[in-house]
Amino acid sequence: MHRTEPGLVETGSPAHHWRVQAHLPVDYQVEMTSGVLDPSNLALLEAGATVRADRLRRFVVVDATVYDLYGDNLRKYLDHHNVEYSICVLPASEEAKTMESVFTVVNRLDAFGISRRHEPVIAIGGGIVLDIVGLVSSLYRRSTPYVRVPTSLVGLVDAGVGIKTGVNHGFHKNRLGSYFAPAVVLLDRDFLATLDDRHVSNGLAEILKIALIKDARLFQLLEDHADLLLAERLTGQTQTGDAVAGEVFSRAVGGMLEELQPNLWEKQLERVVDYGHSFSPTLEMRALPALLHGEAVTIDMALTTVLAEARGLVSARDRQRIFHLMTKLRLPTWHPLLEADLLDHALQETVRHRDGLQRMPIPLGIGAACFLNDLTATELANAAQTLRDLHHPSVAAVATDSRPDPVA
Amino acid sequence: MHRTEPGLVETGSPAHHWRVQAHLPVDYQVEMTSGVLDPSNLALLEAGATVRADRLRRFVVVDATVYDLYGDNLRKYLDHHNVEYSICVLPASEEAKTMESVFTVVNRLDAFGISRRHEPVIAIGGGIVLDIVGLVSSLYRRSTPYVRVPTSLVGLVDAGVGIKTGVNHGFHKNRLGSYFAPAVVLLDRDFLATLDDRHVSNGLAEILKIALIKDARLFQLLEDHADLLLAERLTGQTQTGDAVAGEVFSRAVGGMLEELQPNLWEKQLERVVDYGHSFSPTLEMRALPALLHGEAVTIDMALTTVLAEARGLVSARDRQRIFHLMTKLRLPTWHPLLEADLLDHALQETVRHRDGLQRMPIPLGIGAACFLNDLTATELANAAQTLRDLHHPSVAAVATDSRPDPVA
Repeated sequence: MHRTEPGLVETGSPAHHWRVQAHLPVDYQVEMTSGVLDPSNLALLEAGATVRADRLRRFVVVDATVYDLYGDNLRKYLDHHNVEYSICVLPASEEAKTMESVFTVVNRLDAFGISRRHEPVIAIGGGIVLDIVGLVSSLYRRSTPYVRVPTSLVGLVDAGVGIKTGVNHGFHKNRLGSYFAPAVVLLDRDFLATLDDRHVSNGLAEILKIALIKDARLFQLLEDHADLLLAERLTGQTQTGDAVAGEVFSRAVGGMLEELQPNLWEKQLERVVDYGHSFSPTLEMRALPALLHGEAVTIDMALTTVLAEARGLVSARDRQRIFHLMTKLRLPTWHPLLEADLLDHALQETVRHRDGLQRMPIPLGIGAACFLNDLTATELANAAQTLRDLHHPSVAAVATDSRPDPVA
Repeated sequence: MHRTEPGLVETGSPAHHWRVQAHLPVDYQVEMTSGVLDPSNLALLEAGATVRADRLRRFVVVDATVYDLYGDNLRKYLDHHNVEYSICVLPASEEAKTMESVFTVVNRLDAFGISRRHEPVIAIGGGIVLDIVGLVSSLYRRSTPYVRVPTSLVGLVDAGVGIKTGVNHGFHKNRLGSYFAPAVVLLDRDFLATLDDRHVSNGLAEILKIALIKDARLFQLLEDHADLLLAERLTGQTQTGDAVAGEVFSRAVGGMLEELQPNLWEKQLERVVDYGHSFSPTLEMRALPALLHGEAVTIDMALTTVLAEARGLVSARDRQRIFHLMTKLRLPTWHPLLEADLLDHALQETVRHRDGLQRMPIPLGIGAACFLNDLTATELANAAQTLRDLHHPSVAAVATDSRPDPVA
């Protein structure tokens, strides 16, 4: 990126033109830990706090589901450390990811009162709650430090580690939001013990994304150990399971951060991590609440894998491996809404979002990606049809069989 | 400021700790122009546009008062240049400076649709509308470029040239907001021709602030030409008037930017431009809608000038010059709400806002400032009483006369 030197340049006498240049430094930590709510683990207490006070004060926002499961532990943790605290419980659903929820947190924050620079807001929950609290923190008094503690697998490997915040508005996903870095992100796999199967798979979709676009070794790990990872929910109940989950995590988070760090504000519009996010935003919003984020992303990846195969960028064998792994990870590879009009609309939205070009990340075999700008509506419709056929092979076969034989 | 090098540092094998460092570059232009709505002036058309399109599209938000006066000119300007546009008119009052207004603009923006990177939102109006549109732009799709065209004097020399955005929330001024630089700020003094007297004085308060804390020459200009500046509304109807207004503007804007540039995100809490903004936020909100921003700021400056005099930091002669100029500029130097409890509360809020210390900018004579951290409630109450006495000299005199003579 072109770097400009900070400063103020005046032109004219008396001056009538000024150019203001500056850099906002961003610096945050992403840390794997374990037993984050165990009183002997000080990470949560110390995260983002620059000054040691006599008595700590913390404002904590917790996902309702997480609160049901870990609320007691959280209170015990805070009580043990004699923290004065207020806990704000938020429902976590796409429908509740609105400015109304932002106001709920803001009003509770107003009532509690914090020393904005030394009492970081703590957000514990899935990606939705982290996105909401991130937005609150960026808006509250124009910026208030916060700590992210993702509890879902999507949060741990994707939504939790970047700097994006946002809420839905008027049927548009993340229409209002900001780029606002947390002070610290604490990643604790232990939360996954209580995650339901569907949400484990949901998170594996984002790990699979990183594998497909940049990490063949990660793909191999997922392929070799899918059942073990699912059975142990990546929490490492066996020695092998722990070693595999640890490496999967490290590669997924590290790979994600490698892509994010040089492009935190998304000025560069060609982003491999956008893979699976070209058609899924529209699909996810239209299908609400039927599809989870990672499910919609997987359907998008399935579609674009088929597209890539049709272009000769992915072999039939690799396409089969990919679909096989998706299914093994209990992720969907098709959805009935995947029709031409939805795809056209989604592509239009994505092109607008990417400043007039498709900039469509597409797999190159397994573990690499390139970008397409010349995808056609026909290609898309064909890919959707192929996907439908793959999903309903018997129907496709019957349809083929019933075609009048041109030779007969 | 300590500079960290951008990059990603990994620790462990497999990695379990990452440090993400990056810089967000900010770069914007502040430009004085004239006749900004004159079709021959291309500044507004070209501001913030990086790509030349066949037909330009612009979404323009305009202050209701400004729209009444300049709506026709604006439409003619856009029509002349064959721009496809949508104009969103916003009421401009502190009461309307809310998230509701943000949503109004967002929904209109959704309906119009823009190419987020090449069709900058244009905001034309006073500081309130600029603050609202700045917040919309920072939130809309996590950032949308915008152009600021301030029309009030406060906007031209203060609110318009920085990067702060915000709205009021729950009785708190600017409780929700962001730091979000415009692409370009166009400063056109011609708008002042239609500004009412009270708002001209309101803006002169912020110019006076810059004079008091850092520019004795600017103070002198104001003192020597107050009547002329007021009579011509700083639009330069005479040769002298134009030269003086030009220099006043240049010094006020340049002085402001000199202070803002090294501290755009207000990490440094000792800010001389906070002068007049220690007690005024509370006063302004409590007195709503009685006091304009600059009026509240002047009352704060009057109070702190008296404080400074009591400490020997400003001479009696300088205090008189300052009060004389405030009055000449038709600005208030006292308000009945200026009682001990309001002052105590305001100081508390300010201390909290400034991270536990008063960091109170206070004049050192005329044209310089220092910071206090040891202001007492008694000192404040005494200063408020002195201010009251200065405002009602006869009452004070009577009160003094009726005191029993200790000697008699």
